[in-house]
Amino acid sequence: MTALLTPEQISEKLKQFFLNHLPITQFMGLEVESYDGDTLILTAPLEPNINDKQTAFGGSLYNTAVMACWGMIYLKTQERNIDCDQVVAEGSVKYIAPVKGRIRAICHAPSETELNAFYENFECKGRAKITLDAAIYDDTCVMKIDPEMKPAVKFTGLYAILKSQ
Amino acid sequence: MTALLTPEQISEKLKQFFLNHLPITQFMGLEVESYDGDTLILTAPLEPNINDKQTAFGGSLYNTAVMACWGMIYLKTQERNIDCDQVVAEGSVKYIAPVKGRIRAICHAPSETELNAFYENFECKGRAKITLDAAIYDDTCVMKIDPEMKPAVKFTGLYAILKSQ
Repeated sequence: MTALLTPEQISEKLKQFFLNHLPITQFMGLEVESYDGDTLILTAPLEPNINDKQTAFGGSLYNTAVMACWGMIYLKTQERNIDCDQVVAEGSVKYIAPVKGRIRAICHAPSETELNAFYENFECKGRAKITLDAAIYDDTCVMKIDPEMKPAVKFTGLYAILKSQ
Repeated sequence: MTALLTPEQISEKLKQFFLNHLPITQFMGLEVESYDGDTLILTAPLEPNINDKQTAFGGSLYNTAVMACWGMIYLKTQERNIDCDQVVAEGSVKYIAPVKGRIRAICHAPSETELNAFYENFECKGRAKITLDAAIYDDTCVMKIDPEMKPAVKFTGLYAILKSQ
């Protein structure tokens, strides 16, 4: 199936979703930095998300990562014109190093094989689950997850989509 | 060692900590509901923490739970007059059911045996780790975690304390 909208138009939908439905994202200053169809980067400034050590609060790091993966599924289902409710079922985060500047969470799309299995399960059963990862690097401009570079935060989430009620 | 302050005075310190150091807790409306020396309950209203389904946003549920456990360690180290930096190293959350009203995260103190091992490790090595759990029930007034009652959200976190720098 061909995407009817460009990545820019699709990511605009995610921005509007945050604005219309998740007030905490507005306080955090959470924004879509970029989406190219494969990699989604969400970003938030340090100031509203700061902690007592003048680094990023662990809860804000979690929120940015959980929404990067959530956003990836949102964008992928939008591209396919799949009408569904979407929820996070589980989330796990490891804080490896402090984040001393802007938060940037990077999520790569699942493989075509994984996505096709996900879409097929949804078509057959009216529900489907998928696991996604996100990584946060400390105040850098990393565009891709480089296996040589250690992230400051590693996140894994389990997400479900269900037929809209 | 005898606690020098009452639970009320101790929990006031946590309130001040949130106010002074974690701006996102003020947007969330995160408050100490009660602390009796054994059970800490943090609470936040639904409105600033709402999502598109008119239930509590998964990120806000995580934040409330991660801070309930964080707060328990903060209060316990304050009671012992331990001067330390405190960080969360890992967090895992399972979303079992939606939370349709006020968020209330409940954390029970670790056993005396666990706490003593934690304090001894800190004394000997200048650092110590401990795992804590929190649970969120849907819009109820549960004061204790009843094994018969299923929580809406289960959280486990790994926390570390380090000698202050």
